[in-house]
Amino acid sequence: MIDVEHCVYTMTNNIVGTLNILYAMHESSPNTHLLKLGTLGEYGTPNIDIPEGFFEIEYRGRKDKLPFPRFAGSWYHWTKVHDTGNIMFACKIWSLRSTDIMQGVVYGTRTDDMIDDRLLTRFDFDEIWGTCINRYCAQAIIGHPLTPYGLGGQTRGFIALRDSIRCLTLATENPPDESEYRVFNQFDETYCVNDLAEKVQKVGKKRGYNVEVVHPDNPRVEAEEHYYNPDHENLYKLGFKPAFSIEKELEIVFKDLERFKDRIFAKKERIMPTVCWRK
Amino acid sequence: MIDVEHCVYTMTNNIVGTLNILYAMHESSPNTHLLKLGTLGEYGTPNIDIPEGFFEIEYRGRKDKLPFPRFAGSWYHWTKVHDTGNIMFACKIWSLRSTDIMQGVVYGTRTDDMIDDRLLTRFDFDEIWGTCINRYCAQAIIGHPLTPYGLGGQTRGFIALRDSIRCLTLATENPPDESEYRVFNQFDETYCVNDLAEKVQKVGKKRGYNVEVVHPDNPRVEAEEHYYNPDHENLYKLGFKPAFSIEKELEIVFKDLERFKDRIFAKKERIMPTVCWRK
Repeated sequence: MIDVEHCVYTMTNNIVGTLNILYAMHESSPNTHLLKLGTLGEYGTPNIDIPEGFFEIEYRGRKDKLPFPRFAGSWYHWTKVHDTGNIMFACKIWSLRSTDIMQGVVYGTRTDDMIDDRLLTRFDFDEIWGTCINRYCAQAIIGHPLTPYGLGGQTRGFIALRDSIRCLTLATENPPDESEYRVFNQFDETYCVNDLAEKVQKVGKKRGYNVEVVHPDNPRVEAEEHYYNPDHENLYKLGFKPAFSIEKELEIVFKDLERFKDRIFAKKERIMPTVCWRK
Repeated sequence: MIDVEHCVYTMTNNIVGTLNILYAMHESSPNTHLLKLGTLGEYGTPNIDIPEGFFEIEYRGRKDKLPFPRFAGSWYHWTKVHDTGNIMFACKIWSLRSTDIMQGVVYGTRTDDMIDDRLLTRFDFDEIWGTCINRYCAQAIIGHPLTPYGLGGQTRGFIALRDSIRCLTLATENPPDESEYRVFNQFDETYCVNDLAEKVQKVGKKRGYNVEVVHPDNPRVEAEEHYYNPDHENLYKLGFKPAFSIEKELEIVFKDLERFKDRIFAKKERIMPTVCWRK
């Protein structure tokens, strides 16, 4: 959303990368299971339930099972929609197999494999890459108000980093059949960004932080109050169970971030939005 | 469908070209009306009626108007699906206006503006770019059997080149409102490829050609018998009327091609399919 150069780069990078992988599988390894990370953001925020990839509908008295319509909310999310179409088509014409993960917003600092500080993950809290829970936690640690944009009713599916890795493991351990293209909506719970600000505020207060919440004008073009109800049965059927409650996971995030407080403070000017989509 | 290089080139060329136009409109000419040529092939061949771009549906007791699901049948057609998503999104966030034409297969050699031979259009009859009616006519002229692939029940929407230009003129003369993204399904009639072979055979016989029909194995991956019923009300509401019947238009094609019989004959080895999608 920054400018045409960033848009074209992101679009080309994702689409061409995925196409190259699909052709390589077709030519050299047709039995490989392609596990692709998409995003729940591909679906947008329709006023009806969101199934996992496909839905059976009746229209003018006839029935079919079709891909659920996509209406992504940023260029990045559209690149994922385009990849989804290309993978679905490749599975059909070349009998490839793929699991397409419509992943919710990931939060947290830990997976069970992080047994050493050298394994810690990157943690984005800036306006472009930072996602709201991570940003809120970083804000709370340095005494910056939490910043849900606009009315704050924007609702999405969320999943802890540790749970996300568990889900991907379950998908690889239970691969699809030949020619099967399947979609997993991968998230634990849905929250609106106001709910999450309250949760971070609550956990922060327990740890002695005085956390304020403000509502900057929304720099994006998105519905600020809407229906949102995606399915997520497929992964639960394979045995997925979230490891902790969100508040327990947030406590771990606070503990991890406190050690890096100075580094967050040094970049605090990257937190507030400067890229206005309408401009 | 030829190889990864052709696929990546086509994908990048269409998507990046369209993105550059959208950004240019946003930055320099937000009131411009973008008329984009998509294709009916974006929708694939669902077992339900195909509306013009969007449909109102009820799903699990709730209602919404959503983009009609796309399931294109070749990489080229998928690039058009991706452009459609990007244009729809740009109209939303930047208040641009666009007419997205889901065009049927174009046939014919003439528009009303071709008052001089130097204005004659390119005419493809090869396996890659040639479309079935044009290919059948070229085949009939040089005594090559007509070649509907497989069972021949593949059904699509068709429109004469001259009518296609009339439709585009109507769309530019009646532009959409600010922020409006609208879709026109642009075709005259639907036919299956066997129907068309019969029509070309009939017109050819009237002109003294002995036209045979054969059914090569289908090199593509597509349904050979299916339901197909796309809407096309929007252009008719703006006053569109097809100029001639298909048979009258085919007679004109025969007359035009007869003058170039030697050039078709010289390239006759380009007619039969060599690119097998499954290979």
